[in-house]
Amino acid sequence: MPSISFYQEELISHLKEKISVKEPQNLYEPISYIMNLGGKRLRPALTLLATDLLNGDYKQALPAALAVEVFHNFSLVHDDILDDAPLRRGQQTVHEKWDINTGILSGDAMLIMAYELLSVYNNPEFKVLIEIFNDTSLKVCEGQQYDIDFETREDVTIDEYLKMISYKTAVLIAAALKMGAVIAGSGDEQQKALFNYGMNLGIAFQLQDDFLDAFGDASLFGKQIGGDIIENKKTYLYLKAKELGSKAEKKELADLYSLDPRDPSVKIRVVKEIFHSSGAVDKTREAIGLFTTSAFKELEHLSDYPGAEETLRDFGEELMSRED
Amino acid sequence: MPSISFYQEELISHLKEKISVKEPQNLYEPISYIMNLGGKRLRPALTLLATDLLNGDYKQALPAALAVEVFHNFSLVHDDILDDAPLRRGQQTVHEKWDINTGILSGDAMLIMAYELLSVYNNPEFKVLIEIFNDTSLKVCEGQQYDIDFETREDVTIDEYLKMISYKTAVLIAAALKMGAVIAGSGDEQQKALFNYGMNLGIAFQLQDDFLDAFGDASLFGKQIGGDIIENKKTYLYLKAKELGSKAEKKELADLYSLDPRDPSVKIRVVKEIFHSSGAVDKTREAIGLFTTSAFKELEHLSDYPGAEETLRDFGEELMSRED
Repeated sequence: MPSISFYQEELISHLKEKISVKEPQNLYEPISYIMNLGGKRLRPALTLLATDLLNGDYKQALPAALAVEVFHNFSLVHDDILDDAPLRRGQQTVHEKWDINTGILSGDAMLIMAYELLSVYNNPEFKVLIEIFNDTSLKVCEGQQYDIDFETREDVTIDEYLKMISYKTAVLIAAALKMGAVIAGSGDEQQKALFNYGMNLGIAFQLQDDFLDAFGDASLFGKQIGGDIIENKKTYLYLKAKELGSKAEKKELADLYSLDPRDPSVKIRVVKEIFHSSGAVDKTREAIGLFTTSAFKELEHLSDYPGAEETLRDFGEELMSRED
Repeated sequence: MPSISFYQEELISHLKEKISVKEPQNLYEPISYIMNLGGKRLRPALTLLATDLLNGDYKQALPAALAVEVFHNFSLVHDDILDDAPLRRGQQTVHEKWDINTGILSGDAMLIMAYELLSVYNNPEFKVLIEIFNDTSLKVCEGQQYDIDFETREDVTIDEYLKMISYKTAVLIAAALKMGAVIAGSGDEQQKALFNYGMNLGIAFQLQDDFLDAFGDASLFGKQIGGDIIENKKTYLYLKAKELGSKAEKKELADLYSLDPRDPSVKIRVVKEIFHSSGAVDKTREAIGLFTTSAFKELEHLSDYPGAEETLRDFGEELMSRED
């Protein structure tokens, strides 16, 4: 089985062929810009890999993979407006390079283009793919809304947080894999297994991301360490510390999360100490392990496909051992 | 055949049943708000009417009609952000009542909901409907972009203007009718005829709107007379006056369109005089007549369906005789 980078390259070739600047240029130039900014392209690579592993022709999955990538980039363009983010992948965001109106309208066009890319498929697969896409896209919007809502809520539960990251992050990874299975023509059992593998791995991935944001190696992580703490983000680490901490730890954490100091270094250091002392760090590591194990357990349903289980386990382990 | 208001009422009942506020409420409340603000609901009524006229069951067309209405409202929510519009149908716009982020995200969810509503249809109709929807939605975005581009361009041609309003306004009317024909199970000839009827009538409708904006009866039109002139909008009237006017008229028009006076009444009066004296008013009336005639000519293809031609001609005449 080719490595994940093979599928990433194939996706990029397909993208260069299909995403071009046409009229009206002011609509399509920003789309070409964001689509060519890079990124890991893991989601579309998973679509291609899934088709290949389940004995399909991965080339048949290229349009669906590109639809997944276009949708992902649509969500980034609109989210960057919502978050007022100046940079994406080290470059200017679309609304920063152009303006908010351009970001809104080009994002809208990308969402539609994602649907349009699926038109190459025939029935009955076509309808199945569109329905996966509808369900996924709406959940991504709902997840984004929950994320916004949580900023101003003090009573967010761990379950609510897990639902939010499932919707905002994991469901698209799950859908990318399931779409690959649909295109390979595989049965319900395999489609479900890949979906659940993606959901669990996606949740583990996001928890890992939360963890690295606080405890990653600054030289590897590529973002400022402690960014979530600076922004008072209610991550898994924070919610666990709030749940498990002593009365004093809870109070100190609440106090620190109400501050917005010009030099955040002390705040970051103390919050991280509380994350450790409260047991939140251990519990977060444990949760990452549990979701990863749950993901791998789903792979047992793929025993009829030689190499599938091993390849996806390797992928998951590689993903979860990343430090960036 | 029932009157158009019957289909409007049926659509409203279906809407009340299908569009409810669920979790996350901050995402779905603005959707319910805009969907219940009113409006003429002409597009979805045309979907139902088309199905009925072509011997289909109009109730089968309710989900597609609602998809058309949800899509239309999505485009209003995002366009109102783009245009910085405070009011829609006499009420606060979504981004004004909530904020821009809410407008963006709720709009995104509406675009996806429109696709999702089509999921009740079975193949092969399902794929046909989605493809009509893809094509239409993308053109609406492109039309909006052309409209924005034209604000800062001095060399807009009549053909470019007609393309812009075809995309921004007419294509959704055309698609609404065509979808009705698809659901009725009618053939290519009828689908095309209804599409072309809708395109031509949609263009005539928009030209009429341009005309009424300048020459309508203030007490009936419901908007400020001369709004387009105040905003220096390059409407059909303006482009024709620029094409047909004498050297002096062209110069005066260009001068007036570079001004932004606090009291616009003189500007409006003089621009309207130039629209008359240059022959632009006559040419605009002529164009409205020609597009309306072209629309009606398409109805000859519906001769196998008793009452279809007459009903759609009556609808068109009623629409084009409106003064609001």
